[in-house]
Amino acid sequence: MTRIGILTGGGDCPGLNGVIRAVTLHARQTYGWEIVGIRNGFEGLYEEVYEDLTPARVQNVLPRGGTMLGSSNRANPFAYPVKLPDGRVEVHDVSSRCLANLAKLALHGLVIVGGDGTMSFGQKFIQRGATRIVGVPKTIDNDLEATDYTVGFQTAVEVVVQALERLHTTAESHERIMIVEVMGRYAGWIALTSGLAGGAHVVLIPEIDYDLDRIIDSFHRRHGRGVSYSIVVVAEGAKPKGGALAVATPGDATKQEKLGGAAQRLAEAISAKSEYEVRSTVLGHVQRGGAPCAFDRELATRFGVRAVEMIAEGKFGHVTGLENGKIVAVPIEKAVKKLKLIDPSGELVRAAKGIGIELGG
Amino acid sequence: MTRIGILTGGGDCPGLNGVIRAVTLHARQTYGWEIVGIRNGFEGLYEEVYEDLTPARVQNVLPRGGTMLGSSNRANPFAYPVKLPDGRVEVHDVSSRCLANLAKLALHGLVIVGGDGTMSFGQKFIQRGATRIVGVPKTIDNDLEATDYTVGFQTAVEVVVQALERLHTTAESHERIMIVEVMGRYAGWIALTSGLAGGAHVVLIPEIDYDLDRIIDSFHRRHGRGVSYSIVVVAEGAKPKGGALAVATPGDATKQEKLGGAAQRLAEAISAKSEYEVRSTVLGHVQRGGAPCAFDRELATRFGVRAVEMIAEGKFGHVTGLENGKIVAVPIEKAVKKLKLIDPSGELVRAAKGIGIELGG
Amino acid sequence: MTRIGILTGGGDCPGLNGVIRAVTLHARQTYGWEIVGIRNGFEGLYEEVYEDLTPARVQNVLPRGGTMLGSSNRANPFAYPVKLPDGRVEVHDVSSRCLANLAKLALHGLVIVGGDGTMSFGQKFIQRGATRIVGVPKTIDNDLEATDYTVGFQTAVEVVVQALERLHTTAESHERIMIVEVMGRYAGWIALTSGLAGGAHVVLIPEIDYDLDRIIDSFHRRHGRGVSYSIVVVAEGAKPKGGALAVATPGDATKQEKLGGAAQRLAEAISAKSEYEVRSTVLGHVQRGGAPCAFDRELATRFGVRAVEMIAEGKFGHVTGLENGKIVAVPIEKAVKKLKLIDPSGELVRAAKGIGIELGG
Amino acid sequence: MTRIGILTGGGDCPGLNGVIRAVTLHARQTYGWEIVGIRNGFEGLYEEVYEDLTPARVQNVLPRGGTMLGSSNRANPFAYPVKLPDGRVEVHDVSSRCLANLAKLALHGLVIVGGDGTMSFGQKFIQRGATRIVGVPKTIDNDLEATDYTVGFQTAVEVVVQALERLHTTAESHERIMIVEVMGRYAGWIALTSGLAGGAHVVLIPEIDYDLDRIIDSFHRRHGRGVSYSIVVVAEGAKPKGGALAVATPGDATKQEKLGGAAQRLAEAISAKSEYEVRSTVLGHVQRGGAPCAFDRELATRFGVRAVEMIAEGKFGHVTGLENGKIVAVPIEKAVKKLKLIDPSGELVRAAKGIGIELGG
Repeated sequence: MTRIGILTGGGDCPGLNGVIRAVTLHARQTYGWEIVGIRNGFEGLYEEVYEDLTPARVQNVLPRGGTMLGSSNRANPFAYPVKLPDGRVEVHDVSSRCLANLAKLALHGLVIVGGDGTMSFGQKFIQRGATRIVGVPKTIDNDLEATDYTVGFQTAVEVVVQALERLHTTAESHERIMIVEVMGRYAGWIALTSGLAGGAHVVLIPEIDYDLDRIIDSFHRRHGRGVSYSIVVVAEGAKPKGGALAVATPGDATKQEKLGGAAQRLAEAISAKSEYEVRSTVLGHVQRGGAPCAFDRELATRFGVRAVEMIAEGKFGHVTGLENGKIVAVPIEKAVKKLKLIDPSGELVRAAKGIGIELGG
Repeated sequence: MTRIGILTGGGDCPGLNGVIRAVTLHARQTYGWEIVGIRNGFEGLYEEVYEDLTPARVQNVLPRGGTMLGSSNRANPFAYPVKLPDGRVEVHDVSSRCLANLAKLALHGLVIVGGDGTMSFGQKFIQRGATRIVGVPKTIDNDLEATDYTVGFQTAVEVVVQALERLHTTAESHERIMIVEVMGRYAGWIALTSGLAGGAHVVLIPEIDYDLDRIIDSFHRRHGRGVSYSIVVVAEGAKPKGGALAVATPGDATKQEKLGGAAQRLAEAISAKSEYEVRSTVLGHVQRGGAPCAFDRELATRFGVRAVEMIAEGKFGHVTGLENGKIVAVPIEKAVKKLKLIDPSGELVRAAKGIGIELGG
Repeated sequence: MTRIGILTGGGDCPGLNGVIRAVTLHARQTYGWEIVGIRNGFEGLYEEVYEDLTPARVQNVLPRGGTMLGSSNRANPFAYPVKLPDGRVEVHDVSSRCLANLAKLALHGLVIVGGDGTMSFGQKFIQRGATRIVGVPKTIDNDLEATDYTVGFQTAVEVVVQALERLHTTAESHERIMIVEVMGRYAGWIALTSGLAGGAHVVLIPEIDYDLDRIIDSFHRRHGRGVSYSIVVVAEGAKPKGGALAVATPGDATKQEKLGGAAQRLAEAISAKSEYEVRSTVLGHVQRGGAPCAFDRELATRFGVRAVEMIAEGKFGHVTGLENGKIVAVPIEKAVKKLKLIDPSGELVRAAKGIGIELGG
Repeated sequence: MTRIGILTGGGDCPGLNGVIRAVTLHARQTYGWEIVGIRNGFEGLYEEVYEDLTPARVQNVLPRGGTMLGSSNRANPFAYPVKLPDGRVEVHDVSSRCLANLAKLALHGLVIVGGDGTMSFGQKFIQRGATRIVGVPKTIDNDLEATDYTVGFQTAVEVVVQALERLHTTAESHERIMIVEVMGRYAGWIALTSGLAGGAHVVLIPEIDYDLDRIIDSFHRRHGRGVSYSIVVVAEGAKPKGGALAVATPGDATKQEKLGGAAQRLAEAISAKSEYEVRSTVLGHVQRGGAPCAFDRELATRFGVRAVEMIAEGKFGHVTGLENGKIVAVPIEKAVKKLKLIDPSGELVRAAKGIGIELGG
């Protein structure tokens, strides 16, 4: 029987189960294929931990967050933490064994669901002969060139906007500066989109180094108009002018993990230079867990169906993308070449400035 | 002082206040313009009921549903219900008086926010010399050619998906066919998108006439696999093969108002032809009220800013659109020429069929 | 090994899985008992359809609506629809066979989760010798004397309040009377509580027959103050003065099922007597499905733990109750003797009148 | 004209506007009284900053978080930060001036809405002759003896439970220990209630000092059963056995403000003693902002109506309370004598242990 495989790599995000469900339903019901679920990303390929995916198995998973296949941030097949018999851990290149295991599975096609890290591993596998790979882009960061929207991003924005709404009323009641740190080490999509949608007054993103004085001036201007509170959204990778530069390399699988301090540093800097009462909140992992919003459920489903069609058509080495409201196939190179960043002079930034959001630079 | 006007026409939907807020903030803070809010759509233009819009007035309105300017489904300036002294109501063409009032306002530009009806009135005004008009497309139906997404659509989908999730568990616990009627007289965007995202088993849309036997067969097949409940989403305009044809004319401002019976008719037809226990729910106006989701808040804000820029650039006779993730200006003709319908052989329909959704035809 | 049983009867509601989970976890982990899940209420007892419940089985069910054991509104053991060999259905008393099957199971105790119907069946079983029964009261109607709150009620109220919030903005934008029909055939708890919490202007409950003129007068008074919309919440069992009397008999298992028409009748009556534009919505089954709110999850858990303790203590013939914030054991008679109705001269009604809600009588 | 006053003291929380609205509507519409809103708690009384409250002013505020009257954590009339002409700030007892201002207002009654701090100020004012005071208890901490539930508590629990649900899926996907710090310096009501309702595995509260080894053992036991993730809810005031004792004095108005470090300290301790991967999140002010849940809207409304009735009846020196589902009047002493803490051997703790929650001691 023809069979295909699927794995989810990198950090989890809302919508992964929707992709797994759509791949399983379409592959089985339309083509009659078997589906092999590979557990914990590339770790399961190395360790050969698989499970059968059937329509019954994927019932009711569409609204559930996380990934039913498990995931692993450390599962880099080219730098894998191998536990030695004496208990020590050494980092090895285990890609050859992964490729051998993949060959053993004799898959008609493999769907890899992930961000830039997962896609770059997939590309290297293709270069080493495992050509029957297609990708589905997911990341709450939305920083992949291959697609207008990645699976998981819109849910993260909804979660941040709901938190901003709750913080608005308490900031207003107590006349405070409220700083909210959100995810985004290299790209400010979550920060800027949720700042726009959540009525933030200051939004700081990695793409625009900020000038502290400008920010404090904006508080003064609001005060001058009789408004004595402000909401600041700061991406974890935002930094002051002249601050240390974070290097944006696609494939840095750990980027989600080294959270923050951006909010706290900013709070201290504002307190040192002004008399405003400042509070900070770090939203953390609530941004990447839980039920996907309708947009992500739809996107995950359409991506999953398209990935199966790409296998059926032999369109390997491509990832699914949303372009102009249509689902397209994009060469995997486009997903890994460089991160999709916010254009500091683009329309989104102009829209933010247009309604008076201070971007700090 | 330079001043611009804004009105919201047709049925209300989530996000209208976000447009009004962005237009007000950008026009005042960036350009120093005054903003005249025209109450209740074209009714306020006829009756000369205006209010000043200021940054202070639009504070905190971003998360609020409805429209702070009021709306009126009956405010068709070309067929306006005029109350006569004797109490009778006659339908008159009051467009000349509206145009005269508009001239009196001496606006630098007028933003009309609305669906196909409002846009077609705007186009006629332009043809009669009131050229300084720009439009912002809103409708929960998402059936305007000018844009990938209209303001309000995504919130309606979120509301329907949340309702579907609640109905899932009760349908499953009681082994029932649960029919949910959603808005969409001519276009099935809400039905199909929320059906995809909400795990529906059958989705019936105006673009595809349904065959009752196919639907009942799909219940039988599910039963044969041991699954004894089904969720059916039916657009209010869906009809059986050979049923009476609803005519899709843009500008039919009453289309939202003549709600349904689609669910009830379908429930009766299924009960007559099978032994399944059927329940139906009509979601009604909850789909168009209340807080906009983050997506609509962002879209409303970007559309509002762009509308002001279009006035500043002299780009009249255009409406804002979202294309490929970018905000663009689209000739108003494109917004009113024909409704944007679902392509029965397009990717969205294929995605639905791919995961096993029965479309009835 | 000692074992206990559990079944869920009557209509489903949010929180049932929380009860099942707590009973399973506490019985197994604290006492080492086996737990037999009886499928589809008393139907499973008659048909002998059981499943083992283990801590692994109940993982992740706390947030899920419905009941993992299934339910059946028709499963009245004293009037059970038996299918004859010739296809006809006859209603039989199958209680003796149920009792025999129960004896075969040799349970240390049986937890029945349900409303007044289920509790009255339990009481009859006890009278016929199956004494080792304890009950957990659930019903979205909150109409059981045994407890301040039943499992499921608060979630229904949250759902209705969210819908009211969405309807508010659309009613306000269009200057309409918006009628919302909610569940409650004999008791108005959902209607009055959600009306209070959701800012309704008129609330009609089964306990107070309404005078149409008073209602229309209240619209006039609002209009006179310049407020041209109103939200009306009507319980399905509300009726005009002199209207036909619905008889409130506990144990009427079908009461949830014969939904409505209350909203439509009221809409027609208002339209006939006034010029207001009226819209009506029937919320239906969304009130009883989906994820329980935190309050119901907590209550379900505490009730489930207490039910197991009652078995351990030999406190049979009792149901769990919440009194004064404490979980107590209440004789089952108290749960079935009469429905808990709203006192028309009590504090809740006075609070509603105090903020200006029109109750129609 | 007879008039009454109202102020909101201490930290803001969801439901305050519901109290203000109910007081305003009932006092004006039922009794014809004027209502004076005192801004920013006792600060407005000292500074004589007032506003008129009318039915029109309180329209649409029921769903809004925060307080429309403003609040101030620093507004302790007995230790008030007075700004001197030279810019320095000195702490003065300004209660005499507050009392004089109160006398000038010539109020028929004063409603103070607040927690233990506000109530203790009120009690001192009463002792000094300003006897016409009634109170409404609010605090997200739920730690007032006077009532089963305070306004704001249930919303905080809903917010925490929603966050826990999001963290569950990401913890599960990545096999981690996820620590969530919630509010509660002296009382663990939020932590224990949301832990019960949100499926937490470990809950640490101020009332029970925890033993780190017990906690780590509970992780081992879960691992032994093949479950490799855990959710830990820790109240900000929870501490290890032998840790420094936080002193619970009612009236400590700053208690909400000195947030945390509890999660971080615990994360470090677990990491130092085990190999589990740990992440921590501090929910912070999202717990006290935003729209109240239906339960708090209802409670706020009933409390507000009752407060007005207490003034009408001359029942001063009392606060509203919810007891056994009924609204009662409780002597203000009961609200300030001692904090309501969780009984370590009570039913709520037993329920938590019953379903296997580790409480650490």
